[in-house]
Amino acid sequence: MNKKGLILLLLIIVSAKSLFAQIVNTDVLNTLTDVQKYYRAIHVMAMLLLGFGFLMVFVRKYGRSAITATFLLVSVSIPAYITFAGSSIFSKNNLSEIDILILSEFAAASLLITAGAVLGRLKMYQYLILGILFIPVYMLNEQIMLNNGFGLIQQGSFIDVGGSIVIHMFGAIFGLGVAMSMTSKTEFKSDIETDFTSDRFSLLGSMILWIFWPSFCSALVLPEEVVITAINVILALSGATIITYIFTTWLRGKIDAADIANASLAGGVAIGSVCNTASPTESIIIGLVAGAISTIGFAVIQKHLQKGLKLIDTCGVSNLHGIPGLFGGLVALIIIPNINITAQLEGIGLTIMIAILGGLITGKLISFTGKRKIPYTDSEEFIAE
Amino acid sequence: MNKKGLILLLLIIVSAKSLFAQIVNTDVLNTLTDVQKYYRAIHVMAMLLLGFGFLMVFVRKYGRSAITATFLLVSVSIPAYITFAGSSIFSKNNLSEIDILILSEFAAASLLITAGAVLGRLKMYQYLILGILFIPVYMLNEQIMLNNGFGLIQQGSFIDVGGSIVIHMFGAIFGLGVAMSMTSKTEFKSDIETDFTSDRFSLLGSMILWIFWPSFCSALVLPEEVVITAINVILALSGATIITYIFTTWLRGKIDAADIANASLAGGVAIGSVCNTASPTESIIIGLVAGAISTIGFAVIQKHLQKGLKLIDTCGVSNLHGIPGLFGGLVALIIIPNINITAQLEGIGLTIMIAILGGLITGKLISFTGKRKIPYTDSEEFIAE
Amino acid sequence: MNKKGLILLLLIIVSAKSLFAQIVNTDVLNTLTDVQKYYRAIHVMAMLLLGFGFLMVFVRKYGRSAITATFLLVSVSIPAYITFAGSSIFSKNNLSEIDILILSEFAAASLLITAGAVLGRLKMYQYLILGILFIPVYMLNEQIMLNNGFGLIQQGSFIDVGGSIVIHMFGAIFGLGVAMSMTSKTEFKSDIETDFTSDRFSLLGSMILWIFWPSFCSALVLPEEVVITAINVILALSGATIITYIFTTWLRGKIDAADIANASLAGGVAIGSVCNTASPTESIIIGLVAGAISTIGFAVIQKHLQKGLKLIDTCGVSNLHGIPGLFGGLVALIIIPNINITAQLEGIGLTIMIAILGGLITGKLISFTGKRKIPYTDSEEFIAE
Repeated sequence: MNKKGLILLLLIIVSAKSLFAQIVNTDVLNTLTDVQKYYRAIHVMAMLLLGFGFLMVFVRKYGRSAITATFLLVSVSIPAYITFAGSSIFSKNNLSEIDILILSEFAAASLLITAGAVLGRLKMYQYLILGILFIPVYMLNEQIMLNNGFGLIQQGSFIDVGGSIVIHMFGAIFGLGVAMSMTSKTEFKSDIETDFTSDRFSLLGSMILWIFWPSFCSALVLPEEVVITAINVILALSGATIITYIFTTWLRGKIDAADIANASLAGGVAIGSVCNTASPTESIIIGLVAGAISTIGFAVIQKHLQKGLKLIDTCGVSNLHGIPGLFGGLVALIIIPNINITAQLEGIGLTIMIAILGGLITGKLISFTGKRKIPYTDSEEFIAE
Repeated sequence: MNKKGLILLLLIIVSAKSLFAQIVNTDVLNTLTDVQKYYRAIHVMAMLLLGFGFLMVFVRKYGRSAITATFLLVSVSIPAYITFAGSSIFSKNNLSEIDILILSEFAAASLLITAGAVLGRLKMYQYLILGILFIPVYMLNEQIMLNNGFGLIQQGSFIDVGGSIVIHMFGAIFGLGVAMSMTSKTEFKSDIETDFTSDRFSLLGSMILWIFWPSFCSALVLPEEVVITAINVILALSGATIITYIFTTWLRGKIDAADIANASLAGGVAIGSVCNTASPTESIIIGLVAGAISTIGFAVIQKHLQKGLKLIDTCGVSNLHGIPGLFGGLVALIIIPNINITAQLEGIGLTIMIAILGGLITGKLISFTGKRKIPYTDSEEFIAE
Repeated sequence: MNKKGLILLLLIIVSAKSLFAQIVNTDVLNTLTDVQKYYRAIHVMAMLLLGFGFLMVFVRKYGRSAITATFLLVSVSIPAYITFAGSSIFSKNNLSEIDILILSEFAAASLLITAGAVLGRLKMYQYLILGILFIPVYMLNEQIMLNNGFGLIQQGSFIDVGGSIVIHMFGAIFGLGVAMSMTSKTEFKSDIETDFTSDRFSLLGSMILWIFWPSFCSALVLPEEVVITAINVILALSGATIITYIFTTWLRGKIDAADIANASLAGGVAIGSVCNTASPTESIIIGLVAGAISTIGFAVIQKHLQKGLKLIDTCGVSNLHGIPGLFGGLVALIIIPNINITAQLEGIGLTIMIAILGGLITGKLISFTGKRKIPYTDSEEFIAE
């Protein structure tokens, strides 16, 4: 063998080894990327249980019930979503396991928003029924919006990465639907009491949601978009928090702790649709507007809305998730260049219709299974201390 | 130099560069994998301090003590484990730093379970003594179960990835042993009082444990097993949570908040041994059975057990960690194909023996250092507000 | 084409492919590394809101205010830092987005420490003013210490990876400066009341800080230093926690829950400067000394210091962040071989000067905008429950 031959042999060995190592690496990288998504999934889980759970502890005498209901809603919806996702109807078999887990958590988030509208007025087992009825309707809407279900909206043309419409607005409107069928006259006379300690627990829940919201919005974005998405969400939340303080003081004379706990989060709701495409400046403006709208909702609109629609929205989900979610879906029309305007508006319109119909029917079905005597109290179902 | 020569030279450069970059990458990938493990280690730390800590705040007047005790138990056990791990006896020098940290956290978890059995009945410094005496016994058992210590059980033949036996059952039985030496007659007459706010703090701790349990079980599994392990754990916890609600209502007439806070977690305890091998369906069934067993334990068995064994198990660790842990270790015999049945049963039997002996002796030694006057109160050791 | 030619062609293809894949990988690896940093950024966010926020809830009647103030301080400082970072003065354009986010969080941490010194004695909008005035001064000091600002300290010669000096000591001294201009005589007569539940919330905040402190210190270290940094921080915190228990019992006769909640964290403060270079043994010793100093500060020195300086330090930030931070910066002189002693001492001295001047002027400016009537109560600004 001559010199050139030797060199060639050497090169073949080296190149082959290099190529082989390459192939291994790609697998390893995919695994690492999936594990990174897993951490965002855990952050979202913290939002579901601690965040939504403790935010709802603001009802003074209903704290143990609110937390138990949160536990049950999460425990029924995630396995239900995973089970349905495996069926041929929703054909999610092409998705990775971590993506299905995250999508199931999104469904649980939407369900918890729905439950917030009727909090304190359902028996404990009725939260389980609510969960079982909610999930298929949610998945139907998700299918239409994002996966070209029934061929109604072309895949990729409806923009809602962080779920302003499909998670937040859907959950809020579904909740209003359930509330329409479930609000009794005695409930209109019952005060929703809060106290010093229930407020602090509620602010705890709010902070958990604030902290992990960047992971909620970036849960399914590309790895290279995670950081910029997170920064946008943090800026939107910051804007909403500052404006909430200003508006609550302005509209009410003094600060309402519930406004702070809730409307501060409206920035996270509204940035959802454009969280990975907005600029930092746009993000902070979206947050400011969303926080202002939400505080006006809590301080001014809620009581009129409740009278007008003859329903009680216990947690004010229409003000935190409904209107800011809608705003988020619409703002995409301005922010995103070359957006398919028809698809975006169709998506929003269809989501409203499916949510309100689903909510009304679900509420009617649940109402057949009975009614609480006294709303907003643990004592009917919990052993006294 | 001719054309061919030039090409050859180019190839050599390109290949060499590629190979070199490859070698760097492998190191980088190992580092990335270690850093990913680090995030699971932090999740486990959240479970140790916030999770176990606040779950134990259910004792109304003993909240500051429970949290301080948790702080001290973690702060003594992790450095102790790391120190002993460096000694020649336990020969853990081949392990990476992050693996040793995670193993030390597992030891701290087991210690906190032990402490739960005697919570409120030890002086603050006695928790420190408990920690120092517990760790070497725990490490001895770990050595026998997982590292062929004394040649008793062949390495890899005893299956307990998520610690159903070596962490949960060991801690519970060790705790019962300590309780046997430490329970006084006056303690049988003292009520363990809870109230509305202590219940909410306890549910907070429970939620933290629920949220991060997937990271506990997947802390040391291969990267490609992290996601599936996490999903299994979430399904097991979901099953346990739903069944706990059903069983607490059925057995007690109304919901007991302590049952929800505790038995919901039994799914996480029981899935431990098979968390990376069970199917999703098996996982949810394991959760359902574990939750049911645990709720029966709290609602029915505990009072008889305490009378029979003449001890008080303050937090009911036998019901949450003892029996569900044992169930988890045994269920591996059915779930895992070709499991070494002898090794699995030997492992369980030896763990029970070491834990009970270790606990009895430790309790005896601690009892020599004195006794609290009034159990379950901060006031004996804390400055009044 | 002959055989050799064919082989050459093959080699070229293989090598090129390998090289190309390589280039992609390097990008992917950088993205993965950035996303990993993002998780540490979220951990730090949990510290800012939940950690600092709830630690400050120890003031019984000021809980909702403390949490709202925390929300506002974070929401004003992070966008302010990011905005200023983009200006030509601070020239941080060469930094990646995630690094700027983390640096902005560090600034927010320092600001929260400052706010702790005057907690309960500022009107809500004054926290916003404080934030806006604080950030540029903080960035000026950061620029001098770490980026050769004004050519005063050579880049890389002042060592403070985890921020003992530039974050903790700076924030504490700045806070004392503000307190000097803001403490009124009536405030000296007002008790800072705590109660059973506010103590438990405060311990919750403390635990959050403890748990995520390893991510704070390792936020910006090299990936291969993350694990060892985390272990050092955990050991320092463990040491401080144990010694705090011993010293609080020794100095006060009984345990003070506030000492536990605060001084346990002094280990994290003090390990900052050397967190990635100290040995495990050195780390635990630094923790023990820092915890002891801090507890002595809270139990003995604080009342004399407050009288001597004619100010009130509401949260005792001088004892938790001031002295332990200074200790951390000085201990680097012993621990780190070949450290530039002059640069380290100059850095510490300049930081003290900038912080005290900045604080005094800021306090004066804020005092022009008015004064609370009754300190330490929500009721002046919040709607009653």
